[in-house]
Amino acid sequence: MSSVYLQPGCDQRIKQGHPWVFSNEVQGRLKEYSPGEIVEVLDAQGRFIGKGYVNPNSLIAVRILTRYREDIDGAFFMRRIAAAWEYRQKVYPRRDSLRVVYSEGDLLPGLIVDKFNDCLVVQFHTLGMEIRKDVILAALESVFIPRVIVLRNDVSVRRLEGLPLEKKVAKGLLSGPIVIQEDGLRFQVDILEGQKTGFFFDQSENRLKLQRYVSQGEVLDCFCYTGAWALHAAAAGARRVIGLDSSQRALELARINAELNGLDGVCQFYRADIFQGIEDLVGDNKGFDAIILDPPSLAESRKSLPTALKGYEKINYQALKLLKPGGILVTSSCSYHIGMRQLQDVILKAAKKAGRAVRLVAYGHQSPDHPILLAAPETEYLKCLFLLAA
Amino acid sequence: MSSVYLQPGCDQRIKQGHPWVFSNEVQGRLKEYSPGEIVEVLDAQGRFIGKGYVNPNSLIAVRILTRYREDIDGAFFMRRIAAAWEYRQKVYPRRDSLRVVYSEGDLLPGLIVDKFNDCLVVQFHTLGMEIRKDVILAALESVFIPRVIVLRNDVSVRRLEGLPLEKKVAKGLLSGPIVIQEDGLRFQVDILEGQKTGFFFDQSENRLKLQRYVSQGEVLDCFCYTGAWALHAAAAGARRVIGLDSSQRALELARINAELNGLDGVCQFYRADIFQGIEDLVGDNKGFDAIILDPPSLAESRKSLPTALKGYEKINYQALKLLKPGGILVTSSCSYHIGMRQLQDVILKAAKKAGRAVRLVAYGHQSPDHPILLAAPETEYLKCLFLLAA
Repeated sequence: MSSVYLQPGCDQRIKQGHPWVFSNEVQGRLKEYSPGEIVEVLDAQGRFIGKGYVNPNSLIAVRILTRYREDIDGAFFMRRIAAAWEYRQKVYPRRDSLRVVYSEGDLLPGLIVDKFNDCLVVQFHTLGMEIRKDVILAALESVFIPRVIVLRNDVSVRRLEGLPLEKKVAKGLLSGPIVIQEDGLRFQVDILEGQKTGFFFDQSENRLKLQRYVSQGEVLDCFCYTGAWALHAAAAGARRVIGLDSSQRALELARINAELNGLDGVCQFYRADIFQGIEDLVGDNKGFDAIILDPPSLAESRKSLPTALKGYEKINYQALKLLKPGGILVTSSCSYHIGMRQLQDVILKAAKKAGRAVRLVAYGHQSPDHPILLAAPETEYLKCLFLLAA
Repeated sequence: MSSVYLQPGCDQRIKQGHPWVFSNEVQGRLKEYSPGEIVEVLDAQGRFIGKGYVNPNSLIAVRILTRYREDIDGAFFMRRIAAAWEYRQKVYPRRDSLRVVYSEGDLLPGLIVDKFNDCLVVQFHTLGMEIRKDVILAALESVFIPRVIVLRNDVSVRRLEGLPLEKKVAKGLLSGPIVIQEDGLRFQVDILEGQKTGFFFDQSENRLKLQRYVSQGEVLDCFCYTGAWALHAAAAGARRVIGLDSSQRALELARINAELNGLDGVCQFYRADIFQGIEDLVGDNKGFDAIILDPPSLAESRKSLPTALKGYEKINYQALKLLKPGGILVTSSCSYHIGMRQLQDVILKAAKKAGRAVRLVAYGHQSPDHPILLAAPETEYLKCLFLLAA
């Protein structure tokens, strides 16, 4: 087996458990490795650190799969996938739709698998995983016995690995959206054509938490997508829920989902660009008891951070202006580049400008089916704050 | 009314919503104010910031109660206490025991009130609140109509305000412990003689979260106090729960609580100094599926931080050594001086030493009956991590 020796002084982060070896941390020429092959990673003194797969053409040259001298074969992937599933069955004994493999968070860097009832949606983010597609799909087959497997390899991160974008049905027949359950609510999900994989499991815990704050209330759901937050609010007894989104296709699904749950009398969905001002959109409304801000990532890179922070501040300020005394603002950021403290600072600025004292009554994070590898902060991205405005 | 003018350049933090004015931020001699009197706080240019009470003998000279020119009278305290209670009734419609006033977090700096069924436990932490005791107790009377009011003014922070320590029954008759409910479990609580107020409501959400991870498992509860974590584990189907604490009195209550809930067949409580090594104590045990570490504050001051961090690292390392593969470590710090990131760094070190890959599957924070005033980071103290060990 080939070996990759680290440059002197580059091993601390990796020895602490971070699975990435950057190309500039490697001794020798990366081009000499074959794309995707398994290598031993050694420190400058030749001490074994772990085994992983190489991509000579990626900024992340090696992703470590194990810290032991075990074989990386079908049985290895079976063990890892089975452990990921066992953990989830413990945490969510009653859920049949959730993320079942979360890349580094499940010690399977480059592989993401979502389960929607008996359908699996698989994403191969790296070359090293892509070339092991057959053995991985076989392991998934054997653990989950899915009716349908969809490949959603249309994510732009694949470009960094020199991989083409594609989406396709790899197993079974899929004709249009499917229906899943969350917290007793039913959702139609378009796993082949929807945004990302069609449903955001990462906010599931936070949607459940929302239900505490909305009883009898008027609720505004900004960036409502296909209505998951809105329907949770309605199901928890909100008097009226308004959902806003810029995507006509998402709104159509949101309306279908409201009907599916008999909540279309409570929920109304409108097309709107939230950044053009929430105030304009809600016009004569007297105020809301709860407002949800769950925007797409406004900071995809460090470079776009200043603009993104201004964007977050603006929508949070507007939301605080619209909130009744004692109302709750649920505000999220799914950008890795914005930390929890940074999001809080944005809120503080917005609150000062809006003249509201703001109390943080609950935090939200990505749900337990998206485990964070403690040694790799990059595996954490979702931040959510539940704020009580005086 | 007297006025307090801030030194130039001292107003930014306070204008952003922080309620504390430190003695060195004030113009003029503090001794000229009468202890506890209400003052207007003005910036160096004479612009109104808010109204609060003065303590000329405290490092925190003024605590701001309002940002408006309203009167600080019985009606003011009624409004604030009623708002605090209204919020909690929304969040916890079914709980009759919880913290109902959390000082700055409820815009009532210096006042803490816990509700145990029909008993209130009140703490006056500041002179400004102490001298308004009658009007505040009257407001509490009118909102909660309690059968018993206990004053737990035996907290050392009162010394910083020049107040004596005392505990007493201010209303009604109290003979021994009372029984409260949490998540369907019953707990005997000693509100007059117990540690702090006798029950830690701040961990309530985290105890509920624990229940996901313990089914059929062997659970170790370190610093178990009166058994709240242990009983939650047992009620969620743990096969066996061992609780350790150094206080004989706490262990007695823990055993009573186990019996109260018919879980004494599952739970065993032993006296132990956890820092002398968890390993020694559990001897021949093969390992645990879940371990809870909920120590008292190891860092009461910034000065004791280095020692405290070593202490946290040691117990977390030992716990990780005792955890089965796939097991869950629930680790807490209730010290304000240790931040979330610092606690994570402690775990990373402990995990590296123990040779375990550790995933953060859930965060815990102080529960929603302990709201964090976003402008005052001092109001946040509880951190909890749920960690999955490979």
